[in-house]
Amino acid sequence: MNDSKKLMYAGKAKDIYEAEDDDKVIVIFRDDITAGDGEKKANFQGKGNCNSLISSKLFEVLEENGIPTHYLDLIETGSVLSKKLQMIPLEVIARNIATGSLLKRFPFEKNQKLDPPIIQMDYKNDEYHDPMLNDEITIALGIATQEDLDEIRKITLKINNILSEFLKEKGILLVDFKLEFGKDSEGNIILGDEISPDTCRYWDIKTLETLDKDSFRQGQENVMDIYEQVCAMIVDEKDIERWEI
Amino acid sequence: MNDSKKLMYAGKAKDIYEAEDDDKVIVIFRDDITAGDGEKKANFQGKGNCNSLISSKLFEVLEENGIPTHYLDLIETGSVLSKKLQMIPLEVIARNIATGSLLKRFPFEKNQKLDPPIIQMDYKNDEYHDPMLNDEITIALGIATQEDLDEIRKITLKINNILSEFLKEKGILLVDFKLEFGKDSEGNIILGDEISPDTCRYWDIKTLETLDKDSFRQGQENVMDIYEQVCAMIVDEKDIERWEI
Ligand SMILES: Nc1ncnc2c1ncn2[C@@H]1O[C@H](COP(=O)(O)OP(=O)(O)OP(=O)(O)O)[C@@H](O)[C@H]1O
Ligand SMILES: Nc1ncnc2c1ncn2[C@@H]1O[C@H](COP(=O)(O)OP(=O)(O)OP(=O)(O)O)[C@@H](O)[C@H]1O
Ligand SMILES: [Mg+2]
Ligand SMILES: [Mg+2]
Repeated sequence: MNDSKKLMYAGKAKDIYEAEDDDKVIVIFRDDITAGDGEKKANFQGKGNCNSLISSKLFEVLEENGIPTHYLDLIETGSVLSKKLQMIPLEVIARNIATGSLLKRFPFEKNQKLDPPIIQMDYKNDEYHDPMLNDEITIALGIATQEDLDEIRKITLKINNILSEFLKEKGILLVDFKLEFGKDSEGNIILGDEISPDTCRYWDIKTLETLDKDSFRQGQENVMDIYEQVCAMIVDEKDIERWEI
Repeated sequence: MNDSKKLMYAGKAKDIYEAEDDDKVIVIFRDDITAGDGEKKANFQGKGNCNSLISSKLFEVLEENGIPTHYLDLIETGSVLSKKLQMIPLEVIARNIATGSLLKRFPFEKNQKLDPPIIQMDYKNDEYHDPMLNDEITIALGIATQEDLDEIRKITLKINNILSEFLKEKGILLVDFKLEFGKDSEGNIILGDEISPDTCRYWDIKTLETLDKDSFRQGQENVMDIYEQVCAMIVDEKDIERWEI
């Protein structure tokens, strides 16, 4: 089905294709996976499909709770019809527990609870290795206005509440996650990109075991088992029926 | 005169001694100079004296303009009586022109004008190499409250206006500078530490030549000539008379 459509952008883990409508895109989830500023690379068969289902489900939950997202429809496993956005080059990170790069950079206690959550914005810029920003620098670089940043913060905190609650019921602790926002043709700030084990830290709520891309970063053998397990925890039989995939 | 007093703290360029009064300290400006995260070290005879005069003059200008500072009196060349503060471990940086580390980390144009100025707060922590913070991280680490940070930003912008104006008349362009704040016994936020060529970028307003520690970073031969030149540009005969030094 993608042969007829034009590839707009090939990222590290997804391809963005033109859709029939000018204001829509088709997001194709690939099996590629990267870590460590793009240095560690692999390909896990089925990862793209898994992530497309997980992300679609989570975007639907967000939409139900009043968050404006780019999600329109899971066309088929791996392919998501979405609103076309002018992306804001920010990686908006929310953290409920101190782990990962935060511990390397700042003296937090390992697994320290962060309440209120920490929001961190990194500049999505490969050449500069995604440096952390502050509001003044973001504005001076022309990336976003103060109003944009205030709105993005507000939406991100809401998303954190909604997803933490939803995932808790599925047996998953939402440790931290990365979001990307864009603007639609009317200038509204809309959640784009994906929410999946590639872009979040999920821990088993009982055992605190890693259920996300950290399994790949750490060189575990069972990366795909984990992604499939998370998919089964988050996506119901009913969702599959509803999506007709 | 310092023999009788107790050394409270020996920093990289200054010593802090107890004063007669419990709520005061004596700041001794040493000739030591360091750069590059403490890796490059030297000692320039007369640097401490120069900086004590420059810093005292600039703190007086700030006090005259309503900024609360720790400055009380230049006791003698090199020794400044100051209010004792509980220091907040932040390096509060204000930038009017993009240069230095900002250019390495972010895609600003070299010497790009920054208006409004960029304020950046680094965590004063040698072990973690003074990482840049954002408000959420600063608050989560317990370094300061949101109210403290709002106040510090407001004062820093005021200081930037006052000093930019004052130095312009002396033929100096204030490119960027680093401040440290602390709290007095009543919890008021007070400007502490020093403002000198060690902690600012000053450029000759006509030639844009470096008139600060960048001369040392760059390995120039005339570092002390520059410090003495800046001292003569900023400190008047009248100040010397008034201080009775
Ligand atoms: N609704 C949307 N409209 C337009 N672009 C989008 C939309 N949602 C996500 N994108 C963009 O599509 C791309 C997805 O690609 P992918 O995630 O594979 O790349 P990446 O790993 O983020 O790395 P990079 O984009 O830096 O190459 C991202 O640039 C993302 O910002
Ligand atoms: N009014 C004050 N009361 C108490 N401490 C002060 C006051 N003003 C400045 N200080 C502190 O005194 C010290 C001055 O030392 P100096 O500037 O030489 O150290 P430094 O180079 O900043 O490095 P470090 O403090 O990390 O060793 C700093 O820690 C500074 O925060
Ligand atoms: Mg991506
Ligand atoms: Mg210092």
